[in-house]
Amino acid sequence: MLLKDLKGKKIGICVSGGLDSKTVTKRLMEEGLDVICFSADLAQPDEKDINDIITKMEPCGAPTYIVDVKDDMAEICYETIKASATYDGGYWNTTGIARAVTVRGIVRAMQEHGVEVLCHGATGRGNDQMRFERYTRALAPEMGVYAPWRDPELLEQFPGRTEMADYLAQFDIPAVIGMKKKYSTDANLAGLSHEAEDLEELETSCLIVEPTMGVWPADAPDKIENVTLTFQHGYCTTINGEKVSPLQAMEKANEIAGRNGVWMKNALENRIIGTKSRGVYEAPGMVLLHAGLENILQATLDRNSFSLYKQMGDLISNLVYDGRYYDKSCQAARAAIDTLTESAEGEVTLGLYKGNVFFQSMTDIYASLYNEADSSMEASDGLNPASSQGFADIISVETAALAKAGQFDDC
Amino acid sequence: MLLKDLKGKKIGICVSGGLDSKTVTKRLMEEGLDVICFSADLAQPDEKDINDIITKMEPCGAPTYIVDVKDDMAEICYETIKASATYDGGYWNTTGIARAVTVRGIVRAMQEHGVEVLCHGATGRGNDQMRFERYTRALAPEMGVYAPWRDPELLEQFPGRTEMADYLAQFDIPAVIGMKKKYSTDANLAGLSHEAEDLEELETSCLIVEPTMGVWPADAPDKIENVTLTFQHGYCTTINGEKVSPLQAMEKANEIAGRNGVWMKNALENRIIGTKSRGVYEAPGMVLLHAGLENILQATLDRNSFSLYKQMGDLISNLVYDGRYYDKSCQAARAAIDTLTESAEGEVTLGLYKGNVFFQSMTDIYASLYNEADSSMEASDGLNPASSQGFADIISVETAALAKAGQFDDC
Amino acid sequence: MLLKDLKGKKIGICVSGGLDSKTVTKRLMEEGLDVICFSADLAQPDEKDINDIITKMEPCGAPTYIVDVKDDMAEICYETIKASATYDGGYWNTTGIARAVTVRGIVRAMQEHGVEVLCHGATGRGNDQMRFERYTRALAPEMGVYAPWRDPELLEQFPGRTEMADYLAQFDIPAVIGMKKKYSTDANLAGLSHEAEDLEELETSCLIVEPTMGVWPADAPDKIENVTLTFQHGYCTTINGEKVSPLQAMEKANEIAGRNGVWMKNALENRIIGTKSRGVYEAPGMVLLHAGLENILQATLDRNSFSLYKQMGDLISNLVYDGRYYDKSCQAARAAIDTLTESAEGEVTLGLYKGNVFFQSMTDIYASLYNEADSSMEASDGLNPASSQGFADIISVETAALAKAGQFDDC
Amino acid sequence: MLLKDLKGKKIGICVSGGLDSKTVTKRLMEEGLDVICFSADLAQPDEKDINDIITKMEPCGAPTYIVDVKDDMAEICYETIKASATYDGGYWNTTGIARAVTVRGIVRAMQEHGVEVLCHGATGRGNDQMRFERYTRALAPEMGVYAPWRDPELLEQFPGRTEMADYLAQFDIPAVIGMKKKYSTDANLAGLSHEAEDLEELETSCLIVEPTMGVWPADAPDKIENVTLTFQHGYCTTINGEKVSPLQAMEKANEIAGRNGVWMKNALENRIIGTKSRGVYEAPGMVLLHAGLENILQATLDRNSFSLYKQMGDLISNLVYDGRYYDKSCQAARAAIDTLTESAEGEVTLGLYKGNVFFQSMTDIYASLYNEADSSMEASDGLNPASSQGFADIISVETAALAKAGQFDDC
Repeated sequence: MLLKDLKGKKIGICVSGGLDSKTVTKRLMEEGLDVICFSADLAQPDEKDINDIITKMEPCGAPTYIVDVKDDMAEICYETIKASATYDGGYWNTTGIARAVTVRGIVRAMQEHGVEVLCHGATGRGNDQMRFERYTRALAPEMGVYAPWRDPELLEQFPGRTEMADYLAQFDIPAVIGMKKKYSTDANLAGLSHEAEDLEELETSCLIVEPTMGVWPADAPDKIENVTLTFQHGYCTTINGEKVSPLQAMEKANEIAGRNGVWMKNALENRIIGTKSRGVYEAPGMVLLHAGLENILQATLDRNSFSLYKQMGDLISNLVYDGRYYDKSCQAARAAIDTLTESAEGEVTLGLYKGNVFFQSMTDIYASLYNEADSSMEASDGLNPASSQGFADIISVETAALAKAGQFDDC
Repeated sequence: MLLKDLKGKKIGICVSGGLDSKTVTKRLMEEGLDVICFSADLAQPDEKDINDIITKMEPCGAPTYIVDVKDDMAEICYETIKASATYDGGYWNTTGIARAVTVRGIVRAMQEHGVEVLCHGATGRGNDQMRFERYTRALAPEMGVYAPWRDPELLEQFPGRTEMADYLAQFDIPAVIGMKKKYSTDANLAGLSHEAEDLEELETSCLIVEPTMGVWPADAPDKIENVTLTFQHGYCTTINGEKVSPLQAMEKANEIAGRNGVWMKNALENRIIGTKSRGVYEAPGMVLLHAGLENILQATLDRNSFSLYKQMGDLISNLVYDGRYYDKSCQAARAAIDTLTESAEGEVTLGLYKGNVFFQSMTDIYASLYNEADSSMEASDGLNPASSQGFADIISVETAALAKAGQFDDC
Repeated sequence: MLLKDLKGKKIGICVSGGLDSKTVTKRLMEEGLDVICFSADLAQPDEKDINDIITKMEPCGAPTYIVDVKDDMAEICYETIKASATYDGGYWNTTGIARAVTVRGIVRAMQEHGVEVLCHGATGRGNDQMRFERYTRALAPEMGVYAPWRDPELLEQFPGRTEMADYLAQFDIPAVIGMKKKYSTDANLAGLSHEAEDLEELETSCLIVEPTMGVWPADAPDKIENVTLTFQHGYCTTINGEKVSPLQAMEKANEIAGRNGVWMKNALENRIIGTKSRGVYEAPGMVLLHAGLENILQATLDRNSFSLYKQMGDLISNLVYDGRYYDKSCQAARAAIDTLTESAEGEVTLGLYKGNVFFQSMTDIYASLYNEADSSMEASDGLNPASSQGFADIISVETAALAKAGQFDDC
Repeated sequence: MLLKDLKGKKIGICVSGGLDSKTVTKRLMEEGLDVICFSADLAQPDEKDINDIITKMEPCGAPTYIVDVKDDMAEICYETIKASATYDGGYWNTTGIARAVTVRGIVRAMQEHGVEVLCHGATGRGNDQMRFERYTRALAPEMGVYAPWRDPELLEQFPGRTEMADYLAQFDIPAVIGMKKKYSTDANLAGLSHEAEDLEELETSCLIVEPTMGVWPADAPDKIENVTLTFQHGYCTTINGEKVSPLQAMEKANEIAGRNGVWMKNALENRIIGTKSRGVYEAPGMVLLHAGLENILQATLDRNSFSLYKQMGDLISNLVYDGRYYDKSCQAARAAIDTLTESAEGEVTLGLYKGNVFFQSMTDIYASLYNEADSSMEASDGLNPASSQGFADIISVETAALAKAGQFDDC
């Protein structure tokens, strides 16, 4: 879709209150279009008051609605943790999961307001444009999608931030170009992605990032902080004995893990469109809650199940990254994960220390497959050592066939 | 095989110089068997002088040969790192990989000495018995395998360490039962596995372990130590500018990472025979060298390759765990890994700090797919944003078909 | 478990009415044990009247109960078809799936009769012994399992069929040794497995088998027979316009496909215990119903879903083969399959001709992703060719990066 | 690239001698461009004399070169068979593999002639455009790619075949519109793809296709024809005792299997760009040679190897379909396949009958893992039944843990 295709349509713009948002909003209004703005409340840790966006957009003259998707966001964090669905390099896919719930929330609000075309400010070089496209087309096939930063006309008119500020100045709309930042940040309840600018150089240390959700390990207390988590059906239900909703758990876990320097991932990841992207990622709460669950799953999943669990988590992370959270393949993989984690229940205590997470103890794992008597090398109970002789003999029959077939001739 | 099946055979015993080794050796000699002892030099970090084993075994009256597999060991460490072949919970499979080279080295030495039956002291409840069995049968199909701790006769005669010491005392062979340890340890160049005893209880913190190859994070220096690694074809070839052989690299990396508290893994793993086992693992050098390589691979592997790489690594780790390092399936997976990593070349600098590994910088990655101009969200070079419109349109055609088919109806 | 471990226990024996069954039953009764016999009605096509088994067993003096699992059997056929869960060489795993429902049905009946030990007649060299073992232990952990043909005492007493007949003759129990057969057959509603004897030689053609459920292609009519199937949620619900239950569908499909020579698979498969086994398999109904479903799934599954579908089917077939149908991993994979096939609905007409299955037509696939306008190379509707340029440009950016990195240097 | 971007460039056009080829060639020449034509000799079974293309193109006035890739084509057939790399629905990917060698051959010829832009006639709605794009960009990054049927200017000028014929008539270039065909066909040594037109309707039977490489089963002889194949390293080296090169083998196998009605696949496949496509496929030789190899691999691959083999084949087929035959991921998967098939050696006899392929016999499989003594249910040699008791006991320990954990509670 290009600017000329919008004529006569009611346009809903996804805005953040920044320079881009104002520029696009004003520009479309000047085109004579009927424009409404929308922004999602994702419990962004870098946003003091979400309603500030309304205030910032006001001078443009279009109404702005805030769509609350905080609980959806917490839920998708839980689903992601439950599936260990990290992307390349262990990145928790925090931007990818946020898009799934953001677009769904905003599209539904837009439908209520009769919006015919969704307009988003994602660049024509990244992942988000494709996620906006797919989720809108999937959830509102009747709705068009307009991406100004893929439209040659707007790209030419606004080659940089200066031109945007100049444009807005004509209408007395306040616009701050701001100091050039060392990197840009995308934030939500799940975590923060830092990328671009100085981080684009692979000679740049990840340590240039100033953490928003916590501290670097060197700035964390010189003392182990223990935290006790309980899980039911793979979901964290209490932290340090206190009952928590998913949203509360994420906030609490972000706080605890953040202050202990637990969060950092530097990764070069494969974008949807085939280019590589370098990012530094904060996701303290995801890391902490996952560390707890992982221990329980190690106790409850047998070998086949664990192998399937890993495959499904990898698949989900790839699908979510590609804007396919609602696809049948993702639903199917999540159905498998649900089955595998339904008995993940119990209490885990972890010790946090300057970026490290230690296993302290685990109790009440009712579905645990771990059996001290069978596991023990010495105990007289449990597995009978003499049975192993039969097992070994059977293994030897296969091995003998392989050897006879020359399969080990070069070893 | 049982004791009675050994009559008239030449027996090679794998020994460590401990109470078990002496007991089995003496017991088989008393049976009138022709016995030779063998031990592998795996660059065990907990063994001051490998020749002490000869001294310890001397009173039993059978000769002991040390088989040097230090370089084989370093090589298999490199192959494992190259494939990111960690097992359940991120365990570097250090015992599993050691068995592959130990048994091969010892079996060959035994063949030179005319040994007809290999005898090993692995218990009838663990993984090692199956690895000894498979590797011996694979590499020396003509050789028998005798496992005294699966033989009801020996299990009855020696139910515990006291009975072994008493037995040896009859022959004036010195034997120290020793204090009950909090856990037992298996060691080699790749790392250490601590398990059993107190660690069997899931209420026990991993912090009870006293690290042998390094320190806990809290005891590491309060200062980032940078280390620069270069890689060729996926192998580390220099550390801090100094050329290193695999063996030197492993030793150096163990030292550097160990002193910075980088090593710890607590895991509940799935044993070959279907039981679960809890371990605490040290593998500082593996972790450090792998961290370097991982960064390069993030730059050189495209998305399909990265996905295949992960699958192959998982497969290799499972096969090695099962004593199948020399199997065709493992050889095939390694051939794939070789292809994927042949262009992994370049220099990486990492910062180590109290158990954390930070990305500092990366240079000279000649096969890098990372392109700042394409990756950048803002630059005017590289990928053309307008092209993305066509890409998005194509994606929308598929999405529209899925939507029309009702696939998103419940989302 | 050995004979001596059975003392004082109530034993349930799985019987077929054959020489083995009678021998084991009588032998255990002679041991003074309390014995009850059980047999499963699996809609075996080679069994005229299932109650004949009662008559055959009567002379042994123990009561025999027939457990009706015909509907369970039809259901597991449907689940297997739905998942395309064929094993090595395309074998429909007909014996493997039958064991899952047989043991469950019999174990439950045994529990009602207070049986403490299940006794089965599977040999100590095949798959079934392991399936009996696992399913019994899984579904009735309190029950023991006794396998006479793994017990050295019985193996010695009855080395062959002559010794069994002689033994039974002492008690005036009629026993026919029978002519040596060219192969042995295991049968149930899903299909027939022929193996052993002459088939063991790889020089023997599969054509020595005389089909029980149909004819060889050469003996089928020289005329295409069309059959129309409708599916809902992946299950066949009508055949040629007639509503069918799973059991009716399997019987009807066996008949139709059987008479058209559609059924044959020759395969060398990997047994659970690591040996290879050669079999010739009939499964006409499975093949026919699956052919119908496959066409619908090709219309309703997108590429990611199809890939996941294949993986899950492979996993299920392996797990079922191993006696793990009720394991969490299998349940999870089946949950994924359920999601992927829930919209598999519509009508398919297939043409059958001398072993061949032709696609004739497909209608009413409401969830079809196939769109003639988009698919067409010529039509002016649907996908816009100009959009493809953008798609191609994006693809080229990635390819250029790969080329620059030297990845195509040797091609 | 659009027409306007071609100015001053030397253009190489891929031609078939048909209406499209002539139109594009003449049109570009009229634009004043320097044009050379190229066509690949792929041993197309529907092309009597490949040099006819030169004759047909002559009136356009540009020179035409035939690039011989027959041996490359035979080789890639062999690699595809070796990997069992079929795509959705068992389609042998015959067009996909041909593109890999066609583009490579033509690009190299074009480079020798100083061509700067490759022009191909693939539509903007199919797979081939993307394969041309990727392979050209991969193997000749300096070369541009022009696709007239994605260029709005040419799409407008030539909406249909009539306009093309009219255009050519102006220049007295003979052009036959021809009767509307029931479907269109793409052909090469590997096989034929029939699609479009009447086949686009899912109500159309696959039987409307008139086979080019063979006959329908009903027209095949009413008699089994035996064929004996020998393989070395996974490649067929003799047919019926006669030594064959890959090209000879493909031609011979096409002939033998074709006349016996062995070839047919109807499939709805997932295109690269996300749409579905319906095709009917002939590939008699591929089917026959693969049937032979499959039997050998069933004898030589253990269970882990077979599982890896299937995964790698699936991956390769997907990559080739996407125009990624030369990608690292494909090279790596092929390296794994090479290892798995290097010992695939021996002789197989198959019986062909009206579309069916029967296993007759197999000999001289030196790397066979099949062992009659171990496999036999009755023999007294081989695997010891008593050993199975130990194996079963070990399995029971794991099962008991799963049962205790409640994993079978709902079964």
